[in-house]
Amino acid sequence: MANIFKEHIASVPNFPNKGIAYRDVTPIVQDGKLYRLATHKLAEYAKSKKAEVIVGPEARGFIVGCPVATELGLGFVPARKPHKLPRPVVRASYDLEYGSNSLEMHKDAIKPGQRVVVCDDLLAISGTLRATKQLVETLGGEVVGAAFYVVLPDLNGYKKLSDLDIFSLVEFHGA
Amino acid sequence: MANIFKEHIASVPNFPNKGIAYRDVTPIVQDGKLYRLATHKLAEYAKSKKAEVIVGPEARGFIVGCPVATELGLGFVPARKPHKLPRPVVRASYDLEYGSNSLEMHKDAIKPGQRVVVCDDLLAISGTLRATKQLVETLGGEVVGAAFYVVLPDLNGYKKLSDLDIFSLVEFHGA
Repeated sequence: MANIFKEHIASVPNFPNKGIAYRDVTPIVQDGKLYRLATHKLAEYAKSKKAEVIVGPEARGFIVGCPVATELGLGFVPARKPHKLPRPVVRASYDLEYGSNSLEMHKDAIKPGQRVVVCDDLLAISGTLRATKQLVETLGGEVVGAAFYVVLPDLNGYKKLSDLDIFSLVEFHGA
Repeated sequence: MANIFKEHIASVPNFPNKGIAYRDVTPIVQDGKLYRLATHKLAEYAKSKKAEVIVGPEARGFIVGCPVATELGLGFVPARKPHKLPRPVVRASYDLEYGSNSLEMHKDAIKPGQRVVVCDDLLAISGTLRATKQLVETLGGEVVGAAFYVVLPDLNGYKKLSDLDIFSLVEFHGA
């Protein structure tokens, strides 16, 4: 069956590094109807998980997660790159597909026991997701699911996530 | 009159540099009701300007602008830091309150003649806004307004913007 979202993902060879086929979701986001539909599908998922907070990692996780939060009337918590958040933070480090980095979250962003759904554009080797999950758990929250526009299920990082419920609009195999 | 948004902006002294009072909007965004209300007010403004596209500069402009786009059923176009967008781009440089940087936009992001409202968290010296406007105009679009959570109207950069319609939820004077 044709997947309207898949048709609107641009595959860019050798970006940002040679050998990587970058899956660019901006054509979805630029299209008002598709962006709203994608948001609605992620929001339905988050609602089914009884999410109380939406978390998104910088920066594409903001594009995906923020409208999910407002559709559901929930707060949005950014997981940001170091030194961007001005108030006291917790920090977690992770490996990227092409490098490594850290993420920070404001200490008051999650209340103990809150149910969190993490939103981002793409799940590949899952370093960002695992660091985000660690931040939420450090603050006493629970990651009850994670929602993406795209997942690459054949990568090893994805396979390590058997303990976490994953939702996506599109899968690319063999990546 | 009390301004519910102003009460939820955290003022952080000496961040990111000494002498700067950072106005942090994350307490609004973390609060589901307030985030939705703020989004709705910016969306009403964008609708009044007959916006056809919402543009937001990286990264807080995504948090502010993305849900405005989905509320109105419009596309969202990110203005990103260099080398983040994978497809052909236009670029503009600007001065920050504390440094300088460039922004890029995909060449296919705006169609000639489209009416654009720019969204961001804070308008200070307006370098980001002017660079974003330049990108939109390079692609043939028209910036018909700009919407912020916070403006600092006493700064010189803001005063240079007499040609642009500005909307905000909150003003801080004397900053």
